[in-house]
Amino acid sequence: MRLRTIAEMSFDIAVPTPFLFMLRARSGYQQWVAREEYAFSSGVRAVEHTDIYGNLCQRLIAPPGTFELRTTADITTADHMDRAPGAPFVLIQDLPEPVLTYLLPSRYCEAERFNQMTGQIVAGHQPGYDQVQAIVDWVRSHIHYRPGTSNIPISAVEVNQQGQGVCRDLAHIAIAMCRSISIPARMVVGYLYNLEPMDLHAWFEAYVGGRWYSFDPTQPTLEGGYVAVGLGRDAADVAIYTQFGPPVFPLRQHVEVHRLDP
Amino acid sequence: MRLRTIAEMSFDIAVPTPFLFMLRARSGYQQWVAREEYAFSSGVRAVEHTDIYGNLCQRLIAPPGTFELRTTADITTADHMDRAPGAPFVLIQDLPEPVLTYLLPSRYCEAERFNQMTGQIVAGHQPGYDQVQAIVDWVRSHIHYRPGTSNIPISAVEVNQQGQGVCRDLAHIAIAMCRSISIPARMVVGYLYNLEPMDLHAWFEAYVGGRWYSFDPTQPTLEGGYVAVGLGRDAADVAIYTQFGPPVFPLRQHVEVHRLDP
Amino acid sequence: MRLRTIAEMSFDIAVPTPFLFMLRARSGYQQWVAREEYAFSSGVRAVEHTDIYGNLCQRLIAPPGTFELRTTADITTADHMDRAPGAPFVLIQDLPEPVLTYLLPSRYCEAERFNQMTGQIVAGHQPGYDQVQAIVDWVRSHIHYRPGTSNIPISAVEVNQQGQGVCRDLAHIAIAMCRSISIPARMVVGYLYNLEPMDLHAWFEAYVGGRWYSFDPTQPTLEGGYVAVGLGRDAADVAIYTQFGPPVFPLRQHVEVHRLDP
Amino acid sequence: MRLRTIAEMSFDIAVPTPFLFMLRARSGYQQWVAREEYAFSSGVRAVEHTDIYGNLCQRLIAPPGTFELRTTADITTADHMDRAPGAPFVLIQDLPEPVLTYLLPSRYCEAERFNQMTGQIVAGHQPGYDQVQAIVDWVRSHIHYRPGTSNIPISAVEVNQQGQGVCRDLAHIAIAMCRSISIPARMVVGYLYNLEPMDLHAWFEAYVGGRWYSFDPTQPTLEGGYVAVGLGRDAADVAIYTQFGPPVFPLRQHVEVHRLDP
Repeated sequence: MRLRTIAEMSFDIAVPTPFLFMLRARSGYQQWVAREEYAFSSGVRAVEHTDIYGNLCQRLIAPPGTFELRTTADITTADHMDRAPGAPFVLIQDLPEPVLTYLLPSRYCEAERFNQMTGQIVAGHQPGYDQVQAIVDWVRSHIHYRPGTSNIPISAVEVNQQGQGVCRDLAHIAIAMCRSISIPARMVVGYLYNLEPMDLHAWFEAYVGGRWYSFDPTQPTLEGGYVAVGLGRDAADVAIYTQFGPPVFPLRQHVEVHRLDP
Repeated sequence: MRLRTIAEMSFDIAVPTPFLFMLRARSGYQQWVAREEYAFSSGVRAVEHTDIYGNLCQRLIAPPGTFELRTTADITTADHMDRAPGAPFVLIQDLPEPVLTYLLPSRYCEAERFNQMTGQIVAGHQPGYDQVQAIVDWVRSHIHYRPGTSNIPISAVEVNQQGQGVCRDLAHIAIAMCRSISIPARMVVGYLYNLEPMDLHAWFEAYVGGRWYSFDPTQPTLEGGYVAVGLGRDAADVAIYTQFGPPVFPLRQHVEVHRLDP
Repeated sequence: MRLRTIAEMSFDIAVPTPFLFMLRARSGYQQWVAREEYAFSSGVRAVEHTDIYGNLCQRLIAPPGTFELRTTADITTADHMDRAPGAPFVLIQDLPEPVLTYLLPSRYCEAERFNQMTGQIVAGHQPGYDQVQAIVDWVRSHIHYRPGTSNIPISAVEVNQQGQGVCRDLAHIAIAMCRSISIPARMVVGYLYNLEPMDLHAWFEAYVGGRWYSFDPTQPTLEGGYVAVGLGRDAADVAIYTQFGPPVFPLRQHVEVHRLDP
Repeated sequence: MRLRTIAEMSFDIAVPTPFLFMLRARSGYQQWVAREEYAFSSGVRAVEHTDIYGNLCQRLIAPPGTFELRTTADITTADHMDRAPGAPFVLIQDLPEPVLTYLLPSRYCEAERFNQMTGQIVAGHQPGYDQVQAIVDWVRSHIHYRPGTSNIPISAVEVNQQGQGVCRDLAHIAIAMCRSISIPARMVVGYLYNLEPMDLHAWFEAYVGGRWYSFDPTQPTLEGGYVAVGLGRDAADVAIYTQFGPPVFPLRQHVEVHRLDP
């Protein structure tokens, strides 16, 4: 399907504030960026680079005053996300080298704390895709999904204690659980068509059966309409924005996703 | 300045033909992509990746029939390219590691064949920027610039024999000469505002005084208005398109660059 | 100085167990590997790769029984680690791109939780090297260094709560504090000549004044004799070994460092 | 099998001369470095880095006088190189991204000049491994292998004209021919047990059937005993040494390979 994404953010800046944004979608295996626009308040000059995961990052200094950002893109994306029940677990010795990093614990995914719990949840499921599906089902039924945005991420252990979270939190706990049984897992942030309420979104991918597959613990079923903007080990790597100096929170964050094809 | 670039290409395809295109400008140190569109004949699906130099590459299969491509972008670029007469030669032992690859000979830049000739040309010039300028001046006055496109690249040695060439050829010989005196040099392809006649363009960068500087042997002076699309060791790395299977040549290649700001 | 390092580990393995080891020192800016040997129990076949930070990693399956590993190297390393009191803070916009990742929070360095505390500790110190030194001095005087090995890493927040830790823990809290004031910091694991008691060691580097400098909160002064084996964001990235499946702990870990030159 | 490799080189240096050496074998998929030593004339300090292909490179300044280098390693390598007659051609659209660069022409492999010739040579052979084997057979029977070392590499076109060459030259023409039919191919330099006369060696790998396979046009059959030291697009990338400034040739180059296991 063909989607138009729009994201607008504004901040009230007191002192010149360095930012790293990650809001430029890249064309990749599952999506093609046919059109995009990316603008800041006049006079701000951004420099873009590629991070260690291949994400495009925009570095800039926001000057005092209201700082606004708007990005929009027309993107062709998969009508249906690939699924592969039965896809087997990949032995550690057979994982491609770049995938290994997604087995390690990370800021918000304390994988090594979930060994026992995950073992019980996946018991009886075939190693691989079906285990990941069991984890997603468990998260969906045990961690209450509270849509919306929280500006202070919490870690998988904290998500488990609180029993609820935003999309990012549900992704974090699922990722931590996958890694705890030696299945590589990584976070994706971006857009989802028909997300309710509309906002930026986070989901995750797990490496089974020789490739990455997408999973989304916040949705009852996995449909199409996903647009990836960043991927990495967890929200520390793929924050929509990372800001340095005295904390600044968005005055406004507005997201739209429209379908362009009939 | 703010420029609008447009490139259109069409090919007459007989059998399904794999292509790699390099026509997506990236935002970087010297330019910001504020808007872009990139479209192919309907039904063609491209997958994008980043090459070893950081360029965005579009891989696709062109189906039989007329295959058309159109890309346009609005880009803020430098009004004036940085110059640094007197910037010193950087000792080999002080070059950053990623720069070292640009000292080696490459497909179209047989650097090791230009040692003696370059030594004579740069004699009396201060090691570094001034040597590169002397090389550019020599190329400008000894290799006749014939604007236009040639589909079969020739190497620096061949350019020297023929005494003439397109922009790519002049860049190749200048790069080979820089490397022959241990100055890292790399090719850039993209757009130049006010190029006559308008077309895609090629120039080069040399690493002196601790950073890359741009040079263009085809122009009498170095003004602004450059938009980089790809960079690499030479035209083998940064071909606008690389095509596999039976050779296919463009039916049409059309380029426009407009100035958007007053 | 010229050092001979020896590390021996043995494990009692019940089921075939995949391991990632990081025990091959690389020659780099500050050290040269003149000789090395690396051996496993007979019949074990390791495959080596380079991770995203440039570390050499050895991947293998340890078979049931006693699994032994021995590595030794003769390494020329700096007599004195570089110091640079007064080296300035580098503005976010001026940091080299590969350095930016070391500003982000990571598994054991919850940088964003140390903003206020670090602000008080570095108050009155010049931004840059002197702030890092103030952090190191604070850690040295407030976190009790308990030499030895703990197999379960704790995070900087936990280290602060406990008020004590092994070398890895002291590095983690110092790294978290540096990042909280926007100074890039990364973990280094390796060997230190004359460490008491002798063991593998961990320290950290901070990026100020345009390059990385070493700091070690466990030692009263920064002398020479350091041999780096791995570097990364924290102990999750540079674990001496990462093991998959049912937990296995070393039966024995033995380290020696001898001086070879007079 | 377990091999001991020894390489010694010496140069007579007139002025301080920067060198890049590539003489440190890395452990990888097909070999394990169990022991190594690497030494230069006393007082020379080398800094090592990893190039864009993953090779370890040693950068140094050789001072005036006799400069000597010695490196030795004990390496476990495959008894038999993998072969796969019938392994299929991989479609361009299915090649892994890092493999694409090995389709492009390079300094000594002018792939685009061999289209027609290669087409005739591989006619009637199944696309993939069998085509590469046909190319190797053609090179073996049409290009006379003259063992030894030549210090000035020639390109595949020149090798074809001369009808003879050293191991590097035979690899170059085979690589150029593979790429001309869209099979990725890359150069490997290293050691070969029982090579006659003993010297450093060069061979190549082609990507068919989903992985890299080794081929050696200089040997009547493909046996085991290969130790890879560097790999890249051609000899420009994987020179044993690259030297800057006035040309310096080795006074002496001595290589030994011994078998350590019975």
